[in-house]
Amino acid sequence: MFKTKTYVQRREELKKKIKSGVILFLGNSEAPMNYAANTYHFRQDSTFLYYFGIDRPDLAAIIDLDENKEIIFGDDFTIDDIVWMGPQKSIKQEASSCGVKHTATFSDLEKFCEDAFKRGRRIHFVPQYRYDNILKIHKLLGIAPKHSNDYASTDLIKAIAEQRLVKSQEEINEIEKAIEIAYEMQTTAMRFAKAGMYEKDVMGFISGLAMSLGSGLSFPVIFSRRSEILHNHSYGNKLKNGDLVVNDSGAETTLHYASDITRTFPVSGKFTSMQKDIYEIVLITQLVAISEIKPNITYHSVHLKAAETITEGLKALGLIKGNTKDAVKAGAHALFFPHGLGHLLGLDVHDMENYGENNFGYDEKHKRSTQFGLKYLRYAKPLKENVVLTVEPGIYFIPALIEQWQKEKKHVDFINYEKVNEYKNFGGVRIEDDVVVTKNGARVLGKPIPKAVEDVEEIASDKI
Amino acid sequence: MFKTKTYVQRREELKKKIKSGVILFLGNSEAPMNYAANTYHFRQDSTFLYYFGIDRPDLAAIIDLDENKEIIFGDDFTIDDIVWMGPQKSIKQEASSCGVKHTATFSDLEKFCEDAFKRGRRIHFVPQYRYDNILKIHKLLGIAPKHSNDYASTDLIKAIAEQRLVKSQEEINEIEKAIEIAYEMQTTAMRFAKAGMYEKDVMGFISGLAMSLGSGLSFPVIFSRRSEILHNHSYGNKLKNGDLVVNDSGAETTLHYASDITRTFPVSGKFTSMQKDIYEIVLITQLVAISEIKPNITYHSVHLKAAETITEGLKALGLIKGNTKDAVKAGAHALFFPHGLGHLLGLDVHDMENYGENNFGYDEKHKRSTQFGLKYLRYAKPLKENVVLTVEPGIYFIPALIEQWQKEKKHVDFINYEKVNEYKNFGGVRIEDDVVVTKNGARVLGKPIPKAVEDVEEIASDKI
Repeated sequence: MFKTKTYVQRREELKKKIKSGVILFLGNSEAPMNYAANTYHFRQDSTFLYYFGIDRPDLAAIIDLDENKEIIFGDDFTIDDIVWMGPQKSIKQEASSCGVKHTATFSDLEKFCEDAFKRGRRIHFVPQYRYDNILKIHKLLGIAPKHSNDYASTDLIKAIAEQRLVKSQEEINEIEKAIEIAYEMQTTAMRFAKAGMYEKDVMGFISGLAMSLGSGLSFPVIFSRRSEILHNHSYGNKLKNGDLVVNDSGAETTLHYASDITRTFPVSGKFTSMQKDIYEIVLITQLVAISEIKPNITYHSVHLKAAETITEGLKALGLIKGNTKDAVKAGAHALFFPHGLGHLLGLDVHDMENYGENNFGYDEKHKRSTQFGLKYLRYAKPLKENVVLTVEPGIYFIPALIEQWQKEKKHVDFINYEKVNEYKNFGGVRIEDDVVVTKNGARVLGKPIPKAVEDVEEIASDKI
Repeated sequence: MFKTKTYVQRREELKKKIKSGVILFLGNSEAPMNYAANTYHFRQDSTFLYYFGIDRPDLAAIIDLDENKEIIFGDDFTIDDIVWMGPQKSIKQEASSCGVKHTATFSDLEKFCEDAFKRGRRIHFVPQYRYDNILKIHKLLGIAPKHSNDYASTDLIKAIAEQRLVKSQEEINEIEKAIEIAYEMQTTAMRFAKAGMYEKDVMGFISGLAMSLGSGLSFPVIFSRRSEILHNHSYGNKLKNGDLVVNDSGAETTLHYASDITRTFPVSGKFTSMQKDIYEIVLITQLVAISEIKPNITYHSVHLKAAETITEGLKALGLIKGNTKDAVKAGAHALFFPHGLGHLLGLDVHDMENYGENNFGYDEKHKRSTQFGLKYLRYAKPLKENVVLTVEPGIYFIPALIEQWQKEKKHVDFINYEKVNEYKNFGGVRIEDDVVVTKNGARVLGKPIPKAVEDVEEIASDKI
């Protein structure tokens, strides 16, 4: 945990923004895997972690704004629990570690909510993504499960999102710790991956590193020689010399701040010249995008700048033709770059995604596009100092998509399909770093992870 | 997957046992970790795997007994999905791989259930442990979430449990593959663990091995120098020479059959004489228990035999006094051995636990004890050929439990508390293997994993 005062101050700041009523925070419970008692590793809810920091299942908390009172609800362990789990802190001790004076049993929460209703008070809560918590909302507040999130408090979401958007120095330090783990995961993968191995061999090794060095993965590893598949979670292919593999992975620190890094490297340790051409377009695009970032500029415009840089590069190779700005406006580049440039990063790898991207990444002035590719951009609004986000352009040759567009004669004015088909088995390249917006620009966070062609080749040749 | 005919035969056998109505099988969906799209690794429901073998989220199936018809319900992927996830099989292809002819969209399932109700037909289902599936049961069958499992079909549970209890040769082969992975996890841990490392370093390494060599862990690793804590899932301690560490871990094969192995070893590579004394009692107990196992004997009686062997051993050390059978009958040994001897193993590490242990581990003739320790025995009934279960006796010195019993003067006729307190910081020892009941006895499955004192010392001294 951070120091007690961090949590006290975060709650004080929130209280200034929500004037009245009650704020209800549901912590997470254990998540059953194949039966109730065999659970996935415990992950506390990020909102709960942000305001209370207690990393333990089956808790809830309220901030009673009208009476200026905070209560943690949870049950102490019995001697039977202690035999199975070892000595545990009491709820009182847990609460005091984040500066909360009052505690009650979990079942008291139902009475608390009943009482609040009787007094005609508003109970604010954020959207829920765990089904057991949706059922708790049903039980406590009487909202049908399928409508749970229709009753989430927009005022609360906006207040919390505004607060979590800008990172404190101690949060940035945590993210840099998470990137230190990602550094080990990336450089180990480059050195460990060899022809004849399966993707799974590398995926398991670096997942284990994330578990040893932090709190495990911040999201399922993408490690694939089919590097054109954006979120590939199968690992059954055998690596060959000549393959380009993408490693998109990250870890959580013990306080659950995330990293998210992508590198693409040749299994053999040496890029082919065709691979190098595409790789360098992506690398230049990433560097250009990072150099664009500064306060007040929208991330939407940074994304478009990246799309233009990719288009320029692909024009030089003869894959795209025509006017760059027109091609990007039409969305022709999205055949190769079909996703957004990046996303917020913090306690969640897609920070605050559970609040709904349109609640914090877009607003009245900045509306989500419906265009293929651009519609996946997760954050479009103007940037601010100390916002942390990923910058992750990519170029992919996705056979199913190429076939479909060509059949539909889509963007034939911009796309040279004949040339594109020469790259059909190429795969893809993505390069991703985590950056913080500074006073006048941006800083790539963490110890630099090799990305220049010669640096990647050096490490990927130095096998373990 | 196994061959198509395996699944066809399993369903045919089930159909003979349930004569009429409809059997509804819900597959699992992705399980959200910290927001809806950031999920834990996918684990298909074991009942679904057993009868259909399709390892993909968001499926359901029915067996219509009255019309002798089988249907898989699920939705094909769109081009957007394929961009993110790569090419996928169609539902038709998936269904044919397990010999099911009919398919329909997931939303057709609601119409199917409505229609079945109109025709007054019984819809059988097993208890649910995933909250999203509890909500699906609510939506499809109109059962309030908190009462979902009160309407599970006892006939169906008993029929399936009877079928899954006895393993086929191909299932036993899969379990042996899972034990091969556990062999690597156990021997690697012994060789890798060194003074100065954290428990986490070893836990991460062996978890990674499970991911590389199979489908990951079959349950969260227990790796701890606080070896007296039965299910310790924290890994924050630093290892020291002189420590005895317990490693209770297992893996799933790609078909999701589980292993579950425990070894206890000295970090330094050398047991102290006090550690060796306790270790050898546990080892002898385990060997005695395995030698007791054969068809028709109850696992309850094997458990009691193990409790007696532990008691005899502890009497020799002066920790227990009085008549052995009386001490075990009174439950005095449970201060040291507070859990059951073992559990069924198969597609689940606690096989079929989601059906409710009392539905398959106990019956009218074999009722669950309420005595501390014995009440945790997960399977008590007579054994049969080709049943697979774990044999995992242990001796622990749990400070909180010792203090409580001593304060309550519990079993003072049998327990020599003065002597027990000399062992208060000892920790614990557990040794576990997976065995199959044979025609006349039992066979320890898999490649033998070192457990004799000298064999463990040899490997634990040969550090990597």
